[in-house]
Amino acid sequence: MTATMRPAAEAAPAVPAALGRTRDTVQPALREAVGRLDETSRAISAYHLGWTEADGTPVSGNGGKAVRPALAVLSALAAGAPAETGVPGAVAVELVHNFSLVHDDLMDGDTERRHRPTVWALWGAPAAILTGDAMLALAQEVVLDSGSPHAIPAARLLSETTRRLIHGQVLDVQFEQRDDVTLPECLSMAGGKTGALLSGSAAIGAVLAGAPAETVDALAVFGEEVGLAFQLVDDVLGIWGDAAVTGKPVYSDLRARKKSLPVTYAVTHGGAKGRELAEWLAGEETGGAADEAELARVAALVESAGGREWATAEAARRVATAERALSAIPSGPREELIDIARFIVHREA
Amino acid sequence: MTATMRPAAEAAPAVPAALGRTRDTVQPALREAVGRLDETSRAISAYHLGWTEADGTPVSGNGGKAVRPALAVLSALAAGAPAETGVPGAVAVELVHNFSLVHDDLMDGDTERRHRPTVWALWGAPAAILTGDAMLALAQEVVLDSGSPHAIPAARLLSETTRRLIHGQVLDVQFEQRDDVTLPECLSMAGGKTGALLSGSAAIGAVLAGAPAETVDALAVFGEEVGLAFQLVDDVLGIWGDAAVTGKPVYSDLRARKKSLPVTYAVTHGGAKGRELAEWLAGEETGGAADEAELARVAALVESAGGREWATAEAARRVATAERALSAIPSGPREELIDIARFIVHREA
Repeated sequence: MTATMRPAAEAAPAVPAALGRTRDTVQPALREAVGRLDETSRAISAYHLGWTEADGTPVSGNGGKAVRPALAVLSALAAGAPAETGVPGAVAVELVHNFSLVHDDLMDGDTERRHRPTVWALWGAPAAILTGDAMLALAQEVVLDSGSPHAIPAARLLSETTRRLIHGQVLDVQFEQRDDVTLPECLSMAGGKTGALLSGSAAIGAVLAGAPAETVDALAVFGEEVGLAFQLVDDVLGIWGDAAVTGKPVYSDLRARKKSLPVTYAVTHGGAKGRELAEWLAGEETGGAADEAELARVAALVESAGGREWATAEAARRVATAERALSAIPSGPREELIDIARFIVHREA
Repeated sequence: MTATMRPAAEAAPAVPAALGRTRDTVQPALREAVGRLDETSRAISAYHLGWTEADGTPVSGNGGKAVRPALAVLSALAAGAPAETGVPGAVAVELVHNFSLVHDDLMDGDTERRHRPTVWALWGAPAAILTGDAMLALAQEVVLDSGSPHAIPAARLLSETTRRLIHGQVLDVQFEQRDDVTLPECLSMAGGKTGALLSGSAAIGAVLAGAPAETVDALAVFGEEVGLAFQLVDDVLGIWGDAAVTGKPVYSDLRARKKSLPVTYAVTHGGAKGRELAEWLAGEETGGAADEAELARVAALVESAGGREWATAEAARRVATAERALSAIPSGPREELIDIARFIVHREA
C-alpha cells in the first residue's frame, strides 16, 4: 500500500484507545441481547460475531473492531450524557451491521469473511436469512427496552437508517446489471451502504441522550462523511491494495468488474480512457475471466483516467468535512471521534 | 372437502363484513407506508401485495383477505378506542406478514403464491431478501410514527412477535432434518409460525389504545388460539383437502413428507400404525418420489392412526378457547372477532 491511498498521506494511526474502552462497555449488553434470541439464531449469531467456533466452542479474543458501537457511545458523551446512555444504541447498530453482513454474504455468494466460512456457507441460505432477520428485529427491541425517554426517536432513527442501508444494497445489486451508472448514483449507493449506518451510529447516542437537533445533525453529518471516505478508501484498496494486507486477491474488485467509485469516476470523467474502460467493463459476457496482466493494464487505465487520484482526494475532502462538522462538540469526545474516523479511513485492510 | 375438516361441522361461513370494512380503513395507510420505500422495494412490494402486475400495471381488486389488519383494527375497537387507533398496528402486522411470506417463499423454493410467480422467482434471491428486509424495517417505522402515547409497548410487541415468527420458521427448517419431532415441539413451531402474528395482530390495537393488561392478554390469547386452530385445519387440508379448492396438488404435504400436526400426532400417538408411518417418513432418501396410490395409502394410515380426528377436534377446542378468552370484550367487536376466527378456521382454501 502506498501513501497516496491515505488521504492525509501519513502513517496508519494506532488503534484508538476509545475502541477498546467502549467495547468493554458495550460487550456485556451485546451478549445479553444475543442471549435473548432463540437457541439456533443465538448460536449462529455467536459464531458470526466471532465469539464461538462453528461447533459452539468459545473463542478467546474480543471479536471485531466494533467501530459502530464506539461511535454510538461517543455520541452520548458528545451530548454530555454518560457512556451508558449510548449503550442500547451501540448494541442496536452493531446488530443492524451484522444483520446486513449475514444477508450480504448470502446475496454476494461470499464463502469467507475474516478468514472464516460465512453463515450461509456453513448452515445454508435459510439459516442465514433467518439469523439476519432475527438480529434486525432484536436491534429494535434493544432500543425500545432502553428505558430512555427518547426511545421513540432513537428507534425511528434506527429503522430509517436500516432502510437507507437496504436501499444502498438494492442499488448495488441493480448496478451489476447496468452500464450507465453515474458518479452521483454511485455516491448515493455508497451513502446507503456505508454512510447511513455510520451516520446513524454517530447520532443515536445523542438522540438517546435527548440532545438538541444541531448536535444530532452535526454527529450524523460526521458519520455520513466518514462512511463515504471509508468507502472511497475501500474501493481504492479493492483495486490497488496489497493482497497480503487486505486479505482479498489482488485486483479483486476489477476481477468482479465492480462499478466502484474510482472506476465510475474514471468512466464518467476520464475522456477517451474512460470510454476504453467502459468498453472493457461491458465486455463481461464475452470476455471471460481476465488474467493478471489484463487486470494490471485495466488498473493502470483507471489510474491514468484519474480514478485513483480523485477517490483519494475525495476521501480526504470527506474526512475534512466530517471533522469540521464536529466544531460545536466538546473537545474530549470530539478528539476521540476524530481518532476513530482517521483510524477507519486510513486502515490498511 | 368433508364436514369433518370443519371443527363445528357447519357450512363455511360467509366472508365477514368486518374484513371489507377494515380493509377500506387500512388500505390507504398501507399504500402510504409502502410508498415510503425506495423505488425498487416499493415496486416489488406492490406486486407481491397484489396491487400491480410484475411490469407495474395496476391491478383492479383489493388484494388479499387482510385478516391480520382486520384483527388489529377490531382490537382497538375492543379496547373502546376508534378504529383509527388500530390502523398503524394493522399496517405494521400486514407488513410483517408479507416480509415473512417473501422470505419464506425463497427459503422454501416456492415459485408460485396465489397463482402468481413469487418475488424471488421473478426478480431473484437478492431482491426477495432485500424487499423482505425493507418491509420489516418499515413495519417498525409505522408504529413508531403512530403518534400514540403507547407506541413503545406497541413497537415492542411487534418486534417480539416478529422474533417468535422467525423462531417458528427456524424450527420448521430444523424439523426437516429430524425424525424425532414431538407433538409439543410441533405445536410450539405452529405457535411461532402462525400463532404469534395472529396473537400480535389481535393485541396491537388494544396496546395502541392503552388498554389494561387483562384486555390485551385476552386478545393475545384469542389470536394465538385462532392461529393454532388455523394451522391445524391447514394441515388437515394439506393432506385431505380438495386440490381444486386448496389450489395445491392433492396430498401436497405428504408428498413433501412434511411433519405436519396430524402426521406428528399419528407418529407419536398412533401405536403400530404410527411406527409404520414413521418408517415411511424416514424413507425419504431411499424412497424417491411417491406415486398417487402410495400417498393415498399413507393418508389412510395417518387417518387410521388418529391424526385426522385429533387435528380436527383440537382445532375445535382451540376455537372454543379463543372464543372464551373474549368474555370480557364488549359484544360488538367480540362478535366480529369471532366471525373472523370462524371464517379463517373454516375456510376451504
